[in-house]
Amino acid sequence: MTMSGGSAAPRRTRSDGERRRRAILLAAANLAVTRGLDRLSIAELAEHAGMSKSGLFAHFGSKEELQLATIEMAREIYDREVVEPARSTAPGIETLLALAEGFIDHLDRRVFAGACFFASAGAEFRAVPGPVRDRLEAFQAGWMALLRENAALAHEAGELPGNEAIDDVVFEIESFLMNAHLTFSFNGDPRVLEQARAAVRRRLRRT
Amino acid sequence: MTMSGGSAAPRRTRSDGERRRRAILLAAANLAVTRGLDRLSIAELAEHAGMSKSGLFAHFGSKEELQLATIEMAREIYDREVVEPARSTAPGIETLLALAEGFIDHLDRRVFAGACFFASAGAEFRAVPGPVRDRLEAFQAGWMALLRENAALAHEAGELPGNEAIDDVVFEIESFLMNAHLTFSFNGDPRVLEQARAAVRRRLRRT
Repeated sequence: MTMSGGSAAPRRTRSDGERRRRAILLAAANLAVTRGLDRLSIAELAEHAGMSKSGLFAHFGSKEELQLATIEMAREIYDREVVEPARSTAPGIETLLALAEGFIDHLDRRVFAGACFFASAGAEFRAVPGPVRDRLEAFQAGWMALLRENAALAHEAGELPGNEAIDDVVFEIESFLMNAHLTFSFNGDPRVLEQARAAVRRRLRRT
Repeated sequence: MTMSGGSAAPRRTRSDGERRRRAILLAAANLAVTRGLDRLSIAELAEHAGMSKSGLFAHFGSKEELQLATIEMAREIYDREVVEPARSTAPGIETLLALAEGFIDHLDRRVFAGACFFASAGAEFRAVPGPVRDRLEAFQAGWMALLRENAALAHEAGELPGNEAIDDVVFEIESFLMNAHLTFSFNGDPRVLEQARAAVRRRLRRT
């Protein structure tokens, strides 16, 4: 998997520079969730990575470039942790369930400090038009399309109870995930994750 | 209704100072939703209110006091716009429905720029221990208790379909509200409000 947003050409083996770049972006993704994507400090990240501020600027050029590269890193992690594992299940209701459970599990494992990186950053940038917001919107659209696609397959296959509207199912499932994100990232109490898992299962399995 | 967090004693008629204080806090509540409670600028609010920075400091003393007073103002508005109207309905499922619909309506009317003030501020302060976070947590606990209390009455009265767990109903309703908040405050598309209204009604009325 290659990363967009960087200036280096894709490589088969990662150079020291690329490894360092990734380490910085991992730290940045976690800081973004706890403190805000807009409060990413190049100075602090430089200290974290044992680099000079000018060295870090050489990697990213501007705060906005750093923010975009951090989003790209978060997308890569999200794909690996939430989306990819669901691909081994049958398209339709099984994949829909696996995506929802994968999302709850990634909160539980505190992949991004127990929050959804994209919901956090989206809330932060909702009133800030520009490339950062655009990238977050594109991510969200892609995730919703993935849920909808599998809900549509479930619908066609008669796997959804009754003859329910696809958009309703997707709205409700996404609602349970967003509540889990908001509540768990606020109080860290894992009971909400169990509530969300149970709600997803009720919604998809009820007869 | 009197306000806590201020230094003035409660009065029956509002003085010029109190009116000015309220105007500042109304502006602050809206700025907090669009830009963040932590980015409230005393300088900017002073300009907004046509006051000197030192005059505003005389009102609030510190940024934290301003934040706490802003939360108190938001709570007062939320009570008036969402909670109070629901009190005219019968306790139990009717009140639960009225609270949920009142919440969606207050997004629709853009009472706080189309967002939930408390969910926004809660996400912002989740990793910042202190009095601001405590106040937000107390608000959230009170709101959830109000939903639960009415779900329990509905349960006792046999108004909930089947014999459903009270916490499950409350979790699901709150999920629809939080999704409406996150999505509508991000993209401003009112379709999500209709989806949330329909999901609440399905959840409470389904047979």
